[in-house]
Amino acid sequence: MEPVKHIKVKKDMKASELVENMGEMGFGANKIGRAAKIMDKMFDDKKCTVFLGIAGAMVPAGMKNIILDLLDNSNVFVTTGANLTHDLIESLGENHYKGDDSADDSSLNKEGIDRIYNVFMKNSVYEKLEDFFEKNFSKFKECKSIKELLWKIGELCPKEGILKKCYEKKIPIFCPGIADSGIGLMMWGRIIEGKGKTNIDVFEDMKEIIDIAWTAKKRGIIYVGGGLPKNFIQQSLQFSKGADYGIQITTDRTEPGGSSGAPLKEGISWGKMNKDAEFVDVFCDATIALPLIFAGIKK
Amino acid sequence: MEPVKHIKVKKDMKASELVENMGEMGFGANKIGRAAKIMDKMFDDKKCTVFLGIAGAMVPAGMKNIILDLLDNSNVFVTTGANLTHDLIESLGENHYKGDDSADDSSLNKEGIDRIYNVFMKNSVYEKLEDFFEKNFSKFKECKSIKELLWKIGELCPKEGILKKCYEKKIPIFCPGIADSGIGLMMWGRIIEGKGKTNIDVFEDMKEIIDIAWTAKKRGIIYVGGGLPKNFIQQSLQFSKGADYGIQITTDRTEPGGSSGAPLKEGISWGKMNKDAEFVDVFCDATIALPLIFAGIKK
Amino acid sequence: MEPVKHIKVKKDMKASELVENMGEMGFGANKIGRAAKIMDKMFDDKKCTVFLGIAGAMVPAGMKNIILDLLDNSNVFVTTGANLTHDLIESLGENHYKGDDSADDSSLNKEGIDRIYNVFMKNSVYEKLEDFFEKNFSKFKECKSIKELLWKIGELCPKEGILKKCYEKKIPIFCPGIADSGIGLMMWGRIIEGKGKTNIDVFEDMKEIIDIAWTAKKRGIIYVGGGLPKNFIQQSLQFSKGADYGIQITTDRTEPGGSSGAPLKEGISWGKMNKDAEFVDVFCDATIALPLIFAGIKK
Amino acid sequence: MEPVKHIKVKKDMKASELVENMGEMGFGANKIGRAAKIMDKMFDDKKCTVFLGIAGAMVPAGMKNIILDLLDNSNVFVTTGANLTHDLIESLGENHYKGDDSADDSSLNKEGIDRIYNVFMKNSVYEKLEDFFEKNFSKFKECKSIKELLWKIGELCPKEGILKKCYEKKIPIFCPGIADSGIGLMMWGRIIEGKGKTNIDVFEDMKEIIDIAWTAKKRGIIYVGGGLPKNFIQQSLQFSKGADYGIQITTDRTEPGGSSGAPLKEGISWGKMNKDAEFVDVFCDATIALPLIFAGIKK
Repeated sequence: MEPVKHIKVKKDMKASELVENMGEMGFGANKIGRAAKIMDKMFDDKKCTVFLGIAGAMVPAGMKNIILDLLDNSNVFVTTGANLTHDLIESLGENHYKGDDSADDSSLNKEGIDRIYNVFMKNSVYEKLEDFFEKNFSKFKECKSIKELLWKIGELCPKEGILKKCYEKKIPIFCPGIADSGIGLMMWGRIIEGKGKTNIDVFEDMKEIIDIAWTAKKRGIIYVGGGLPKNFIQQSLQFSKGADYGIQITTDRTEPGGSSGAPLKEGISWGKMNKDAEFVDVFCDATIALPLIFAGIKK
Repeated sequence: MEPVKHIKVKKDMKASELVENMGEMGFGANKIGRAAKIMDKMFDDKKCTVFLGIAGAMVPAGMKNIILDLLDNSNVFVTTGANLTHDLIESLGENHYKGDDSADDSSLNKEGIDRIYNVFMKNSVYEKLEDFFEKNFSKFKECKSIKELLWKIGELCPKEGILKKCYEKKIPIFCPGIADSGIGLMMWGRIIEGKGKTNIDVFEDMKEIIDIAWTAKKRGIIYVGGGLPKNFIQQSLQFSKGADYGIQITTDRTEPGGSSGAPLKEGISWGKMNKDAEFVDVFCDATIALPLIFAGIKK
Repeated sequence: MEPVKHIKVKKDMKASELVENMGEMGFGANKIGRAAKIMDKMFDDKKCTVFLGIAGAMVPAGMKNIILDLLDNSNVFVTTGANLTHDLIESLGENHYKGDDSADDSSLNKEGIDRIYNVFMKNSVYEKLEDFFEKNFSKFKECKSIKELLWKIGELCPKEGILKKCYEKKIPIFCPGIADSGIGLMMWGRIIEGKGKTNIDVFEDMKEIIDIAWTAKKRGIIYVGGGLPKNFIQQSLQFSKGADYGIQITTDRTEPGGSSGAPLKEGISWGKMNKDAEFVDVFCDATIALPLIFAGIKK
Repeated sequence: MEPVKHIKVKKDMKASELVENMGEMGFGANKIGRAAKIMDKMFDDKKCTVFLGIAGAMVPAGMKNIILDLLDNSNVFVTTGANLTHDLIESLGENHYKGDDSADDSSLNKEGIDRIYNVFMKNSVYEKLEDFFEKNFSKFKECKSIKELLWKIGELCPKEGILKKCYEKKIPIFCPGIADSGIGLMMWGRIIEGKGKTNIDVFEDMKEIIDIAWTAKKRGIIYVGGGLPKNFIQQSLQFSKGADYGIQITTDRTEPGGSSGAPLKEGISWGKMNKDAEFVDVFCDATIALPLIFAGIKK
């Protein structure tokens, strides 16, 4: 047994040193430290295919750069339509704003402000989205899969962002729930205007992600917030020997039985996680945990 | 100000009386009582279109009958592919089993048992699923929307269940993330076997749900567990005056900013919730809260 | 393996039947059902000494009667000073009120209202408390232990309540943190007024609770909310073969390592819980869970 | 409105810079950034009396040095007996160990290991505690208040630690629940051995903490984990204009109504928090949040 070491926070201490020290502690700090070690190993392992699954409104919270950096080390990206819509909004030149989670929602509504906990967004962003989709719909309606659509949006994005990077680096990006998002609404808007029909099959992307899981030599998973991104990767892993490395960051409870709160080890019963895998469940807000863990591998 | 009344649990007390008493208490009990009152009102209001959004593995937990009863009072149903897959599994004659959340996952894996918290499922259920999809794929591949596919599955289900009921009662059932589920896997399996292609457009169902939200005189929402079902209904409500009645049951935290944990009042800023609506957020495992609330309206 | 049964909520269903049905389900409902079974067994086992530990402001929430009924089956009661102060306030004829958890706290402060989540209390209750302690301090200052003081308060209480019942039925009531409460403040107020000194030794009550744990043939524990009540019972159990029955109701997380969120099984390592004990951890607001569980044993 | 800025984690980034960047984000990261700013201000304000309240087993988790450093900036310290017992255990030369939260508790029990989530402690530490209290009980039994007892323990501690520092720097240390701890057990053990009686009045320390709150020009509060430490400070603040600065770190829920999960703003209704105060509620495991926040003021 190794003794717990008491962390000493020093002036000018590096963030990576802080995280390394956390790994010598107990409770949640220990998990942050372990997550950094596992992420480092996963990214270093040349045989490992990394599946990054991100739910939750990470872009509005200021996590875009972290995600961009994680994408440099990821082979597959699965996320929610909401996250991508917020990314696109910023790529079109709009912002998210620091707000107050105790603001009065009726007043915000009158001022045209949409609230996401303590982040504000002007409702007028939808106008720019409309313009973008009006202009480019003829290209979008030719896409045959969600991935193709998202890459196309990325290609046409005026500014840097997650969508643009996935397109440019040809990172497979999957978003089965795309209809459930601002991007979905924009597509629907053009369709009901009579601008034509889409022909994007619901099951089209499954082949690719399952093929990747199947043929990968080793598999690493990073789940932020659970949701559909986690589950979509998990189901693909059933067609493999299971993940070899795993990091899950969520604040959801285990007891109500949902996938988002299920600990990674539950996946062992299903064969989604290898029984000899190195993995850690981090109970922490991802806007705190992920910058820390990422700082831990930036040595 | 009305005094809190101390609940007195009596022998042979009716469940509806228990819930009524809870409404005279404080803390979480009060919310259960309020939820029952709001549900009663929502179901009684002839002008109200009820949107039921259910995430989480409710069928494995034994909530099928509750959902079937809620469907009798609902006009739109949105759920996850997982929930529907588990419903189909039971309609095909298989069961879920009471298990132990501290069971050893490696041992379960060897025995062919998949664990969902404290519920077990035999991995062999997938064989029956395979057979069902093999047999009926030719009919499924003709469907043009997810709703149509789900109704078709319901039509062909040998036994009663959620899918069958939605088909029989023609309740619009939406499941934007269907690819992310056992049903998705079964469809994919047939496609890669070369049994033909599907042609189910990702955005096809959006028109219907938004039309329903738009044209409804009044709108009531019931969200269990957040996730994609909540969000898909919420985005449709943006094209309305917002919900007039609302019940949300979730154990997710507000602070990490995700939609599943966002309190209903946040929707006021977006126009998804009417500022004069009657609504309540219930912080409780849905397998406890929903039977209670439902008992509260069974007077 | 026993199949999960789907609960069917019927008109006029008894609360006890609802709970029994929950025991056939999965997830949290299952735990409610199990808790009722264990409580029933614990109360029926003539050899079992029952330790009831209740933290959290249960009296303001309307849980007084439930606690009074639980006391009929308990041999030792440990609680917080806050809970007892609120009990005394009601025994002196004051009320707690149903309030709104989103009320403006500055406005409440101006109106003399103290808020406890969605329960309100008039700040003026402290005047009645002052009068009671002014009148009776000469008797209180003669007490030699916290238990003796609490029994004395119970004896002098004008109306029924927890304190009065513990006095009348001679239920040992322990409250190591009594200084941290309104009762503590009232005692301090008289002392600084010069009405005399108290002489209540901090460690005095330990002998009795440890003796009870030590000499009990079997031990049952019921913990609501963790905190000092749980821990004080737990440490007494170290001087025994550990608890034989256990029910814990808490919404605290396990991961941050605190005693309130620690699952009962952790106590096995310490010898506070017998490895063969029957126990269950219920993740639920106690104002919902406890009335339900209690209804479950009222058959 | 200020835009959310996307954090960019750079190689060799300082921890203080990471925290500063977090303050420009949304969700939980924003709260970490704000907490650092408020802590900085609170510690810099010469008029401010700082009340530090720490619950939870922080010493076993490796937080001793952080607490020692916080004490350099604090005027009053309130904590649990458990925390102080673990501090004393380390001061007597024993350790806590990095463990596994999924370890088998029956096996640990056989090996004489006590588990605190993912931290292990040898049960044999109690022998050293026994020796220490045997040797020094004659001095301890002369103490007239809990504070005096704790300072005396600190004076006699062979090694550095929290107790020793409080004694050496004459920081008032309050622990109303001392009976509920290993220190309590050690005192009880000597008393029942017939080594004499103690005479430590339960209410003795109240005068001092309330006097400090009353006479302070300004008041700052730092609460970790809620519990009795938070509540004991809160009740003292009622005799003041309320806190002017506040930081609360807890993962407890608000909805079940307990003090540990109550947001700081609730204190405004009671007059425990000044309505114009600067305060923040941080939802995070303290072993992650506190090192980060503390790094944020170490510029």
